[in-house]
Amino acid sequence: MTRFKMTVSYHGGKYIGWQRQLNGASVQAVIEEALAKIEGAPVVIHAAGRTDSGVHATGQVISFDMARVISPEKLLLAVNYHLKPNLIGAIDCAVMPPDFHARFSATRRDYAYRLFNRSAPPVLERGLVWHVPRPTPLDIPAMTAAAQWLRGTHDFTSFRATECQAKSPIRSLDVVELTTTGDEIKFFFSARSFLHHQVRNMVGTLVEVGKGKRHPDDIKKILAAKNRADAGVTAPAHGLCLLKVYYDK
Amino acid sequence: MTRFKMTVSYHGGKYIGWQRQLNGASVQAVIEEALAKIEGAPVVIHAAGRTDSGVHATGQVISFDMARVISPEKLLLAVNYHLKPNLIGAIDCAVMPPDFHARFSATRRDYAYRLFNRSAPPVLERGLVWHVPRPTPLDIPAMTAAAQWLRGTHDFTSFRATECQAKSPIRSLDVVELTTTGDEIKFFFSARSFLHHQVRNMVGTLVEVGKGKRHPDDIKKILAAKNRADAGVTAPAHGLCLLKVYYDK
Repeated sequence: MTRFKMTVSYHGGKYIGWQRQLNGASVQAVIEEALAKIEGAPVVIHAAGRTDSGVHATGQVISFDMARVISPEKLLLAVNYHLKPNLIGAIDCAVMPPDFHARFSATRRDYAYRLFNRSAPPVLERGLVWHVPRPTPLDIPAMTAAAQWLRGTHDFTSFRATECQAKSPIRSLDVVELTTTGDEIKFFFSARSFLHHQVRNMVGTLVEVGKGKRHPDDIKKILAAKNRADAGVTAPAHGLCLLKVYYDK
Repeated sequence: MTRFKMTVSYHGGKYIGWQRQLNGASVQAVIEEALAKIEGAPVVIHAAGRTDSGVHATGQVISFDMARVISPEKLLLAVNYHLKPNLIGAIDCAVMPPDFHARFSATRRDYAYRLFNRSAPPVLERGLVWHVPRPTPLDIPAMTAAAQWLRGTHDFTSFRATECQAKSPIRSLDVVELTTTGDEIKFFFSARSFLHHQVRNMVGTLVEVGKGKRHPDDIKKILAAKNRADAGVTAPAHGLCLLKVYYDK
């Protein structure tokens, strides 16, 4: 058996999420079926991040074993052939040592969250950005100040989904950045790992700061409260994208 | 009557092009119908660039007159309300002097052309970029060298559609740039005006240089030939986007 690492991109809006479920097409099921056609037998894949329904990826990483002897270059072409016409594409592929695991070997994950703050709805970016309509312009300096409270090692209980199954609510958020281009606001988050809904709950709360409903310093109190009810709404899934996963060389 | 200037964005893939035609929904017709609902009478609009079917815009500019007394801010909201659920959005709106004309007053136009050169088809960007699949990696330095021959004032007969109706084939191309981000190649063009299909024909020819089918210096000969048959294929419409139109203040 050969262990492969593959980077994949997908449009989350077309699938019920990463994980296999009974009620619709998951990204995992579609990719596993494509690989099974090449292997001639079932293939089980593991992903760095089990993204929710609606969440996109440009750099999700998966690992799996195959008995069939095939070069990574040929496997890449074959997978993309079988994935048509899905909104899922394999970006690159490599052979790894047998102890490589897309999820457990990962050392860092980057996520982006895109938001449009303007009167017009998104057009070319529809389904890829959260539309927060004007006339209310979001207060960017306030949001930037608020975001700084999230950086570092904290108990993120207030920002995790109540159904989150992680053993510990402690996470280290290494990077939180806000950049604006015209009417677009892009959030960038980097951490070893994230709790369930953590990014979307942080974005939803930061937008409430941007609307003036909360003070930037409220973030400190929300973290201390360790209570999901104290934080803001969960931002919609379709603004979120898993950008990149890092591994030790 | 008040003359308005409005910046609009649209997904070209959903319409038969800018101009009103009998065989389907044009961007012009959809916007004119939205404005007519506000005016209570027909409104005729003029656009800076009459984009072809499939071509996108993030910064198309239109001008029109309305008898109804309404602020630009309210007009913007009303237009976006009536444009739903179209993939057309009004970005901003201003009152202009009566001699302002979106097309004839324009002094410069910026276009971008996006291309993915990788095995995987575009996913989040499907319909917005031209997919030129690998394994053939395009020769970026050759394409950049070739592009430089296009800059400046030339007779662009070899790069204009045979049905182009412009009186003169002479145009001044002020900026031609290629930038790469991962597997994406982005072309940027800026000129006072362009001939019909000029950008797509230039991109199609540059890609043939990138594939090694032509030498960078061939561009000089193609321009001199003044013959459409000497240049390369017309790049697909869906990679092209009208970014911005400039006016004297």
